[in-house]
Amino acid sequence: MRAEVVSVGTELLLGQIVDTNAAELGRVFAECGVVHTHRQTVGDNLERLTEALHLALSRSDVVVTIGGLGPTEDDLTRDGIAAALGSPLVHDPELERTVREVFARRRLPWVESQLRQAQRPECARPLPNPNGTAPGFIAEKDGKAVVALPGPRGEFVPMLEGPVREFLARLGGGRTLRSRLLRIAGMGESVVEHRLGELMHGSDPTVAPYAKPGEVHLRVSTMAGSEAEAEARLAPLVAEIRDRLGDVVYGEGDETLESVVLGLLQRSGATLGLAESCTGGGLGARVTNVPGSSRAFVGGFVTYSNEAKVRHLGVREETLAAHGAVSAETAAEMALGARERLGATWAVSVTGVAGPDGGTEAKPVGLVYIGIAGPGGVETHRHLFPGTRETVRLRSAQMALVELRSALIARV
Amino acid sequence: MRAEVVSVGTELLLGQIVDTNAAELGRVFAECGVVHTHRQTVGDNLERLTEALHLALSRSDVVVTIGGLGPTEDDLTRDGIAAALGSPLVHDPELERTVREVFARRRLPWVESQLRQAQRPECARPLPNPNGTAPGFIAEKDGKAVVALPGPRGEFVPMLEGPVREFLARLGGGRTLRSRLLRIAGMGESVVEHRLGELMHGSDPTVAPYAKPGEVHLRVSTMAGSEAEAEARLAPLVAEIRDRLGDVVYGEGDETLESVVLGLLQRSGATLGLAESCTGGGLGARVTNVPGSSRAFVGGFVTYSNEAKVRHLGVREETLAAHGAVSAETAAEMALGARERLGATWAVSVTGVAGPDGGTEAKPVGLVYIGIAGPGGVETHRHLFPGTRETVRLRSAQMALVELRSALIARV
Repeated sequence: MRAEVVSVGTELLLGQIVDTNAAELGRVFAECGVVHTHRQTVGDNLERLTEALHLALSRSDVVVTIGGLGPTEDDLTRDGIAAALGSPLVHDPELERTVREVFARRRLPWVESQLRQAQRPECARPLPNPNGTAPGFIAEKDGKAVVALPGPRGEFVPMLEGPVREFLARLGGGRTLRSRLLRIAGMGESVVEHRLGELMHGSDPTVAPYAKPGEVHLRVSTMAGSEAEAEARLAPLVAEIRDRLGDVVYGEGDETLESVVLGLLQRSGATLGLAESCTGGGLGARVTNVPGSSRAFVGGFVTYSNEAKVRHLGVREETLAAHGAVSAETAAEMALGARERLGATWAVSVTGVAGPDGGTEAKPVGLVYIGIAGPGGVETHRHLFPGTRETVRLRSAQMALVELRSALIARV
Repeated sequence: MRAEVVSVGTELLLGQIVDTNAAELGRVFAECGVVHTHRQTVGDNLERLTEALHLALSRSDVVVTIGGLGPTEDDLTRDGIAAALGSPLVHDPELERTVREVFARRRLPWVESQLRQAQRPECARPLPNPNGTAPGFIAEKDGKAVVALPGPRGEFVPMLEGPVREFLARLGGGRTLRSRLLRIAGMGESVVEHRLGELMHGSDPTVAPYAKPGEVHLRVSTMAGSEAEAEARLAPLVAEIRDRLGDVVYGEGDETLESVVLGLLQRSGATLGLAESCTGGGLGARVTNVPGSSRAFVGGFVTYSNEAKVRHLGVREETLAAHGAVSAETAAEMALGARERLGATWAVSVTGVAGPDGGTEAKPVGLVYIGIAGPGGVETHRHLFPGTRETVRLRSAQMALVELRSALIARV
């Protein structure tokens, strides 16, 4: 079973948009066990589109087109597929009713050109589009299939993940790629790979690492005919990986580091306050991006100036004079001050040199101190992060969450 | 002059990476006046790659390949191009020296497989790769040209923007697309288009709108042989657009709303403090992402709980009791409190219901109040933003900057 993609749209060739849909489709092919050997991209030009479809049908069993299903004269995918399959376009009264309903529901004035969207190749069955007006379709003829999907992302993804994934899985023999995603923070990719050793090189299940800023994700995957069959193969390997890596595996699937930390806080009835300098609010923004974060997050101070550190966090002027704003001593007093003034169980401070200016030989760009104040006192950690201002700030917020999580786990 | 792209890499077909390089290349084709009609994507398979190159050479004058130039056995682009052009691979001692130098400089142990990267089709001239080991090349034969570019982004972009752009511009006749980007905040896309009317539909220069969260960008472009020729056509139209839109055009090119606001503050010797509730630090993070922001930004409070609003900003308990935390009254007191306690010239407050929970009929998800306190007193603005928690928070921070900018402009 060989599949091929034809992406349609002049805006793709002009580079005005990036073809993320094609990548998404590629993942679904792989997950459905369908072999995917070619992708073609053509503009809104009937001759070139039809040529591309002929070529695709000559060498592949299934061709999936993306885009060109709208109502305008530039939307030529229906015509191209009809020509390439030799299956004439027919007007489908059922489709017309659907399109008219969408217009009525959205109170849009009806325009006759919309009737183009009620056409389909004679041999095609339509795929409903609950998120737009352009229906997709699956056209099967002479042992070949053409699947037509709309280009707008909000319409493309649901149609792909619904009826098209089902169709492709059936073609691929019913076995699909199932996986679990392990999320790791506080250990670099090379150390992770070293600890896992031969586990990284298994052929079934496979283990694939993805390096993210300050995190490593491991995708553990297997082709299986059912969830239970997959889980029987995945669970022992996941357990072995967790065993070898220990606490640095902070979560699975969609869990984020901030949601895990908030969960730990809530389960112990604890609250959190922040004192940010070089992250400027970025740590607070990350924590409060989690719905319901107000149950554990009290608030924070963004103290950019020395004066604000003294006035609002109670950092002592002598400390700043003796050690500077970027120091373990200041980080400790910031965390303690925030904890006391916010009345929180835990408080985290971040102070550092984000750059690009402001670095010295003794305190270079990327030097960051993190303070964690809790029921057991205060601890500080020194870091030297490489990279741009943005990277230093991102890594600082990430590391603050990693260290808070460690402190929370150690208390339990 | 017709051009075609062949992207090489099984990881593209599997959807493990998105082909942003091809989009970038498409933009450069357009900017160089080169017509771009097809793109093909194939995996790391010599037969299919050579076939794709044959097809491309049969219908296009220039073929640009992306990827497959590394040292491993999967890197087959050199071989495919040599076969398709009928120009045998030769060992280039100069290239070998370059690759060995990179290894020596990075203190990497030499491996013989690296010698693959010292090969090139006989008719090719190498393109140096200062950011990696794999050189690119331009092979010209029988009136056709094949340009080979490496896949890693950090190597691809400099090679594309340097020698390859120059090569393509010469092919395209020396005229390239030059443009100015106008950045607009505080006016929706449809209003912008309405105000500009017929200006949106000119054919040279063209005006293309791009909607961003809370912003509209307008790209004004023309094909020209020189910077001066372009500017002579662009300047009058840009002036007319600025005239019709007024102050909502906040900047051009790389300027961001936060950098423009910080510039206004600094030029008037003023400082800024923040009081954030629903944005949770996101506004501070945005402001402090600008290098040198510490010259105008003093600090901020993230007051998530009512108690923190009272204790740290001096919001009155009666105000919270009578109007609630999400109200014009609370926004005003937050801004005034932050201004006074941070000793800043200006202070901005944000309080709202970001969702997904916590909305009521009177105060639905998306309701946000922004307060601006300055030398002339305090003003508040009410907004109802649609969308997810993330969108509401982003739009809130954006609108706070828009309104601060308006207040700063009004004072001058």
